[in-house]
Amino acid sequence: MAGYPPEMTDLLERLGRLPGLGPRSSQRIAFHLLLRPAGETKKLGEALEKMKASVRFCASCGNLTNRRTCSICEDPGRDHGIICVVEEPKDVVAFEETGSYRGGYHVLMGKISPLDGVGPEDLRIGALVARIRRQSPREVIVATGSDPEGETTAFYLARVLKPLGVKVTRLAAGIPLGTAIDFVDPGTLTRALEGRRDL
Amino acid sequence: MAGYPPEMTDLLERLGRLPGLGPRSSQRIAFHLLLRPAGETKKLGEALEKMKASVRFCASCGNLTNRRTCSICEDPGRDHGIICVVEEPKDVVAFEETGSYRGGYHVLMGKISPLDGVGPEDLRIGALVARIRRQSPREVIVATGSDPEGETTAFYLARVLKPLGVKVTRLAAGIPLGTAIDFVDPGTLTRALEGRRDL
Repeated sequence: MAGYPPEMTDLLERLGRLPGLGPRSSQRIAFHLLLRPAGETKKLGEALEKMKASVRFCASCGNLTNRRTCSICEDPGRDHGIICVVEEPKDVVAFEETGSYRGGYHVLMGKISPLDGVGPEDLRIGALVARIRRQSPREVIVATGSDPEGETTAFYLARVLKPLGVKVTRLAAGIPLGTAIDFVDPGTLTRALEGRRDL
Repeated sequence: MAGYPPEMTDLLERLGRLPGLGPRSSQRIAFHLLLRPAGETKKLGEALEKMKASVRFCASCGNLTNRRTCSICEDPGRDHGIICVVEEPKDVVAFEETGSYRGGYHVLMGKISPLDGVGPEDLRIGALVARIRRQSPREVIVATGSDPEGETTAFYLARVLKPLGVKVTRLAAGIPLGTAIDFVDPGTLTRALEGRRDL
């Protein structure tokens, strides 16, 4: 009984282990590469190995870096008296893209989510507590998402961090820019009312 | 402005070019590999390059092979007087898994689909005609799918191949094994009635 050549079977098997890729999507990717110039596959293979060899988590904040500590933690021009706590490295990128934040970060590597079996002990909260004790920042901004898990994580952090004597703040909830009022969901509108400010 | 390390950006950019992978799914894969042992990424990279270096389309039937012609075309124990025409290499695997077919194949590399811009000239139909002229098989089984595009392709093939004097057959349409009648759709039931045989 003849199937695919073993080199194809092996690749499909390895692609199928990646998150989000089933047999069909793996096949689609393998066939795509089969039809493209060999240089593309070679460069993809090299990019995979280079990423794995170079990229790690910053020993201090948990952000991605290709050194021991990341360029943000090592930047003397940034205000290390403020720590912005985020869920994932991609949130760091989002804040950096605003160009309006000049403090440091702390990446939790997830959010409390009992349904997914993620508890506080699975996040980098212990490292955050140790860091606050060591560095005594004047403010910790909790920038987890406003979904239920992000909110739960924020409340948990507030409870754990406030006893350390540091000021703990949370991102404002309200109406996103460029949105008509009748497009805003009731929960967000309620939050925007509660957080209203003098004009 | 700090983003991801360049090795990560490069990998995400290359993953994002693959079919079915957007920025989010690419990120999910890259982060998965970041958290797994380095050997996994290395082996995935090697599997990619090995597949690309070894696997090609059989010069005769279009099936996948790691030689010039595939093991099925080269097998003297198979009946090369019958050619089973399929859409994709994965269909060859499906027939081989039945263990009940011992003829040859011809892979079209798709099906006629005007909506996707795929016409007859994009498929390996010219190669099929040339092969029939050269090998004079006694039967060509059209084994494209029973979806509208597969049916269109089958009708097109019948029109092109019959003038060559070869017997052209089509897979039977009917009730799948193990199915209760009231679960069968009306179109399939109609086909099953039309194709009924003496008991």
